[in-house]
Amino acid sequence: MDKFTMFGQLKAHPGMRDELARRMLESAETLEGMDGCLFYILNESEEDPDALWIMELWENKEAHAASLKNEKVRALIQSCMPLIAGTSSVPIRPIGGKGL
Amino acid sequence: MDKFTMFGQLKAHPGMRDELARRMLESAETLEGMDGCLFYILNESEEDPDALWIMELWENKEAHAASLKNEKVRALIQSCMPLIAGTSSVPIRPIGGKGL
Repeated sequence: MDKFTMFGQLKAHPGMRDELARRMLESAETLEGMDGCLFYILNESEEDPDALWIMELWENKEAHAASLKNEKVRALIQSCMPLIAGTSSVPIRPIGGKGL
Repeated sequence: MDKFTMFGQLKAHPGMRDELARRMLESAETLEGMDGCLFYILNESEEDPDALWIMELWENKEAHAASLKNEKVRALIQSCMPLIAGTSSVPIRPIGGKGL
């Protein structure tokens, strides 16, 4: 299975989640043109007012890695750094299902 | 935002993950005919040998709830129960992104 999935958390500094979400959604617009990105969905945590969760599906690991070298994505990530208190992710590997 | 996302963990009894995955993928086949289900992706944890993680995107909460009343889905879930040691989920709400 080549497909690559990610489920990661971005923890904003208190009061910064909305602005972080706004900038992350801007970066999602950049991904519209990237065929290797099948979906990139930003979610708010319903429990933690500072947390965002991102669900991602990519054609393969290489497509994801290449996106992190995209200048526009890099600039957006840089702009988000001051708003981010921490990050974490659930290490997963897709095995099947609808939409894969 | 009507769309509904879920990220949930199924913890299998030791040694039961592969069989649980096999049965869950069968249930994913049933979802192929359900328009309200946009994706339902089964993942293995790369850390915990007993854990599966499911990424789901539905048109709305009602479509997801209706799927749990589907007889075939209910029968498959019943058949999985003996293999499941526990479940948990990350309560999230989608706000935007590619593929939503």
